[in-house]
Amino acid sequence: MRIAFFKHEANTTRRCIGVVQGERVIDLSLASSLYGEKSREAEIPKLETWPQFLQLLMDRRKAVEELIEFAAECSQETGVIRPLSGVRLCAPVEQPRNIICVGRNYLAHARETGHEAPREPILFAKSPSAVIAHGEPIIYRSHLTRVDPEAELAVIIGRRARQVVASDAARYIAGYTALNDVTARDLQKQDTGKGHPWFRSKSMDTFCPIGPVMLTADECPEPVALDVSCRVNGEVRQHANTRQFLFSIPQLIEAITRFITLEVGDVIATGTPEGIQPIFPGDVVEVEVERIGILRNPVEGPRRHGGTEKV
Amino acid sequence: MRIAFFKHEANTTRRCIGVVQGERVIDLSLASSLYGEKSREAEIPKLETWPQFLQLLMDRRKAVEELIEFAAECSQETGVIRPLSGVRLCAPVEQPRNIICVGRNYLAHARETGHEAPREPILFAKSPSAVIAHGEPIIYRSHLTRVDPEAELAVIIGRRARQVVASDAARYIAGYTALNDVTARDLQKQDTGKGHPWFRSKSMDTFCPIGPVMLTADECPEPVALDVSCRVNGEVRQHANTRQFLFSIPQLIEAITRFITLEVGDVIATGTPEGIQPIFPGDVVEVEVERIGILRNPVEGPRRHGGTEKV
Repeated sequence: MRIAFFKHEANTTRRCIGVVQGERVIDLSLASSLYGEKSREAEIPKLETWPQFLQLLMDRRKAVEELIEFAAECSQETGVIRPLSGVRLCAPVEQPRNIICVGRNYLAHARETGHEAPREPILFAKSPSAVIAHGEPIIYRSHLTRVDPEAELAVIIGRRARQVVASDAARYIAGYTALNDVTARDLQKQDTGKGHPWFRSKSMDTFCPIGPVMLTADECPEPVALDVSCRVNGEVRQHANTRQFLFSIPQLIEAITRFITLEVGDVIATGTPEGIQPIFPGDVVEVEVERIGILRNPVEGPRRHGGTEKV
Repeated sequence: MRIAFFKHEANTTRRCIGVVQGERVIDLSLASSLYGEKSREAEIPKLETWPQFLQLLMDRRKAVEELIEFAAECSQETGVIRPLSGVRLCAPVEQPRNIICVGRNYLAHARETGHEAPREPILFAKSPSAVIAHGEPIIYRSHLTRVDPEAELAVIIGRRARQVVASDAARYIAGYTALNDVTARDLQKQDTGKGHPWFRSKSMDTFCPIGPVMLTADECPEPVALDVSCRVNGEVRQHANTRQFLFSIPQLIEAITRFITLEVGDVIATGTPEGIQPIFPGDVVEVEVERIGILRNPVEGPRRHGGTEKV
């Protein structure tokens, strides 16, 4: 299933959970409240938050399927089924505590940055305050000189995960989405050169587009083999397949949960392939992950040139 | 005012906001609901979340004062006034998106780590999932060899802050608390040595005790001059005064909000003084900040020795 987190209009704060089927979306949040009204013995809770949906998906998959069946039979006037083009997609996250990223998880990318394959996963975080949705602008601040997009497959955690071993990791995954690990490369180089942390360069406002939807984990068993690509103004910059990971998703989950407990809705970005090149104001960046879709974001800010040096 | 975020018992999820007066705490959450019942024209919302309280404090200080007056007159049987010893303190945060820390903000500490004074603030983040309250144990994982406590004054943001200039920064501060920036020094050295990010060493589960209470900003005008100290098993390890900051709190807020928008309830840890030494399972760590109080946490884990080398 492809799951959307969406608003009916731009000017509302209420967000709904839906299943995307072709060009339509089935509003499971609305369906869950209609379902409750129809049955006195409703065993399906009203779907109000994203983590709540993830938990239902993980623990009571059949209830989600039952809800979809119920929704498919709802009449036109209930508004449960809508054209996908008529809703506004949100990033498939809701107040995650952690967005954990992995550096150099494709050998060719490690080499283009002047490094060899790391011996253990290189972990860092992006601030949840940097998250934007499909369609929202990446803001290029005037004090920056080099900003790069990084196309990545992201894992959405569906179950509290603490000290998980790789062989058991699959059952903690709710699904997959696309993530653009936008990076202020100038700041990153400056900070790394001094032995300082990467925080600023990775967590700048708007530097974490996520979406457009979540593909449920059942559709994508380990080893995950999905094409990941990045296009800027239609030109392909990055293109690889997640089969090429240096560390598999289960290995990453083991490495991360060795020291940090992941919660429902937390995100792991699995690293970016080779082909890093800068973006500029006026550009449109597309991160595409096979079967998940295209995460498209325009770049806004002062238009200018420069910053074309090597990564 | 000293503000507590607390539970009435250990086994409840409901948290309340209270004013600490000597050895008693006035439950403002309970008072706000009684206040609403008494007056049909109640203009004070029911206080249910920590960010909601911070907003009321920032925007309608008089309403908070009115609520305290009302609460002080409540009868014994309402339970609005309680002995502080009878409640369980929580960390004064609720789902913060950012806990931003500052490295080497005291010259003597920069020097003990082999560095000079930084020319701009060194920023990094701790994961909100690492937060624990006063009294909760710091867990020393068996795969670590060196863990250090770091006593710090922390700032609690009360107003959305974006591209704030230092001269205007004071009005974004709700208050101050104490924070222990517990660090897996072995991992930090290992990661820094490779030019890797600091994430793991700083964000490990339980490595961010915060509390015991928040001192409201009005009681502590700029330049903030509070004694900060760290004691382990009663022995003083760190002792300094925030007058010795290399970058003042307004300068830090300017530097951070230049690239990241801070939200109500976000936290800035202002850096630690010299005197870093390791802790071991069985130790009790106290971070004390003048007028805020003592943040005390036991260290739990496999008891052993080693890891006494220089920072």
